[in-house]
This record gives sequence, structure tokens and C-alpha cells, in this order.
Amino acid sequence: MRKVKWAVDYLSNSSHLIESPETLKGQWKEFLQCDTLHVEIGCGKGNYSLFMSMLYPQDGFVALEKNDSACGMAAKKFDEQSQDNHLALIHGDACDLSNWFADNEIDIIHLNFSDPWPKKRYAKRRLSNEKFLAQYKNLLSKDGQIQMKTDNASLFEYSILEFLNNGFVLVDFSVDYRRDEHKEDVLTEYEEKFVEKGQPIYRCVWKKKYEDNTK
Amino acid sequence: MRKVKWAVDYLSNSSHLIESPETLKGQWKEFLQCDTLHVEIGCGKGNYSLFMSMLYPQDGFVALEKNDSACGMAAKKFDEQSQDNHLALIHGDACDLSNWFADNEIDIIHLNFSDPWPKKRYAKRRLSNEKFLAQYKNLLSKDGQIQMKTDNASLFEYSILEFLNNGFVLVDFSVDYRRDEHKEDVLTEYEEKFVEKGQPIYRCVWKKKYEDNTK
Repeated sequence: MRKVKWAVDYLSNSSHLIESPETLKGQWKEFLQCDTLHVEIGCGKGNYSLFMSMLYPQDGFVALEKNDSACGMAAKKFDEQSQDNHLALIHGDACDLSNWFADNEIDIIHLNFSDPWPKKRYAKRRLSNEKFLAQYKNLLSKDGQIQMKTDNASLFEYSILEFLNNGFVLVDFSVDYRRDEHKEDVLTEYEEKFVEKGQPIYRCVWKKKYEDNTK
Repeated sequence: MRKVKWAVDYLSNSSHLIESPETLKGQWKEFLQCDTLHVEIGCGKGNYSLFMSMLYPQDGFVALEKNDSACGMAAKKFDEQSQDNHLALIHGDACDLSNWFADNEIDIIHLNFSDPWPKKRYAKRRLSNEKFLAQYKNLLSKDGQIQMKTDNASLFEYSILEFLNNGFVLVDFSVDYRRDEHKEDVLTEYEEKFVEKGQPIYRCVWKKKYEDNTK
């Protein structure tokens, strides 16, 4: 994504941006006044978390984006369109999730159209790599879920095996998610484009294995 | 499939058709002079087993088809094109597999483009239904595999969850198998048509869970 100056400049003025997310570690539900906490990792321009927070006004949403231009655009969108105080934005990298969230704090992690990092030598950067999965497992609540969508067949194939080999149980699975109506789940910006072109959306939903649920 | 009289009539003359497969129970490898036994459940007109048996001349192949017209066409094709004695045909139903094969006798089960039985009330007829999976598990050798291909998204989704919930481990997984070259695996008649139309081929490969490998 190319640099968008106004968006980068906007970031510091945003009322939804949490400047020091580590200060809220373990207290996100209190802060967002919710029982169910969602975290979208890589929110891009923010449509998904914004519209999901409207669809589920009782839930709390934290959107995370490391690209400063995308994050600034999400910030402006949140400020303009969201009246609620149960939506927050973090400008940062998924590697730092454990600094910002306590163990068992997150109920639903959303991975939407993550960068596929197609070259094998960059596999560790994929957000469904085992290193990230180990981190998510600690952060997820007992019955917590990871919901992943992608248009990328290779990333999907890689992810399915990676989740299965790292202590997750498949709860739901689709190779063409939008062939049926799913009003319970919002389309991301990317997703709208792929659906318009008639490309399939792959989706999988995971929970922790029973023996890992005891933590 | 409509009745094809010549094919039905041909069946009784075929040299590849095994009239009483139960007499070979436990002795298929000896009969087909092989160390690795493949069984294709629902071989249709027979291309897959025929060409796989040519690609793997050391292995034994048993093709099973319940439709008498399709089975007759496969029989004629086998008689005309296969010079080998390591290919056999059974005219019968997958429900009877345990009458024809001993426990641990089969090394690779192939499920190619099985009938999706889309209506939920017929789910038990799907060849990846838990009842069939329990049967396959007994028949498979210790390191045996089930290789499944389909063009049907709903059947694929159903099957992935059914295998996972019934003691199988995912070994390989693709949502667009033919985007890469796979010379090690032959295309079925159906598959050629779908590939020509640009439709994706879904594929999954399974082995038994370790704790089930002890049988």
C-alpha cells in the first residue's frame, strides 16, 4: 500500500486509537463495556470491525493494523461513523499481541484476507504460522474461536494443516462461504471485490483442543 | 446414468470382473501379485483405476462400481486396454466392502467424485459418511491412506468435518488440486470435464489416527 499522507497525519488525532494498549492489558472488557471481546488482526481500512461492531452492539471490538496509512484511514472511518465506545484501534504488529492482551482475554480472533506471504522463506510471517497460533492459543478464552477468511487457496491450504497440527479443532469450514447468505458476518473491502469477481471465499473456524481448554 | 444394454450384457464375459470377491478376502495381494493394494470405490467408467494401474505397475488395483452399465463399460475398457493381471473389477455396493476385504488389507482407498447426495436426509449414503469411515478404518493397513477428490464444495466441506470427527488425520489438502501439475495422480472422466471448464478440484488425503494404528 502506498503512503497516504492525510491518513498518517490523522492517526494522532483519532479518538478510537489506543496509544498505549499495554495499559489496558487484562481490562479490555471493562474498558469496552462488553462480555465478548473480538480482535481483528490486520483490519486494513477498517470496514469489517466497524460494521461488525454495529451488527453486534453488545460486543467489544479491537482492530489492529500495522500499516500506518491503512490504520489512519480506519481511524478516520471509526471516528466519523462509529458513535459507540465499544470499538478501538491499535496501530501495531501482531507479534506484540501478548503485550496488549492477557491470557484468556480474547473471545474471537478474526483473520481476514491476511497477507499470504507466498514465498516459503517468509512462511513465518503468515498470521496462521505456528508461532502466531501458539500466541493466539494463550490469548483465547476457554471457548474462544479463531475465524479466518481468505481468497488465497495456498494460504488456506497451509493454514488448515497448520491449525490442525497445532492443537486446534475445526468447528466450521467452507470453500465457498458466500454461495450461501451469511448475514451474521460482514464483508471486508477485499471480500467485496472478490465476491463481485465471482471468486470463492475460503473460511475456517477453530477452537482450542479440549486438553488445552483447561488453562 | 441410463441403461447401456451392451455394457450390462458384457459384464458376464469380462476377464477382469471378479464374480465372487468374498473368496479373495485376505488374499488380494497374493492374487494381484502386489505389496500395495489400492481400492477405488465408485470407479464409474474405469479410467482412473485403469490408468493408475499403468502408472504404478507394481501395485494392485481393485475398482468397485455398483451401476451395472458403468461397471460393464469399465469391464470392457479393462479387458481391451489392460494387459496386466494386477487390476480387478467388482460389481457391487460399498456397503459390502467388509465381506470382500479383510481388516488391514487395503493400503489406499480412492474416493473420486462420489455422489454428493445433497439432501440432508440422504447424508448416510455419502461415501464419506461416518458409517463408511468406520468401515474404511478397519480395512486400511497401519499406514494406509484415503485419497478423496471432488468438484462438489458441499460434499467436500461435509467430508472434511466427518473425517476429522471420526479418527482420521489430514495428511494433504487442496482446494484447487489441478492448479499445480500432479503427474503422480490420474484424472478421472469427470475430473477432465471440470478441469476443462476451469472448475476447482478439491482433494484431501487422510491416515488413521496414531491410537488407531495399533490394530
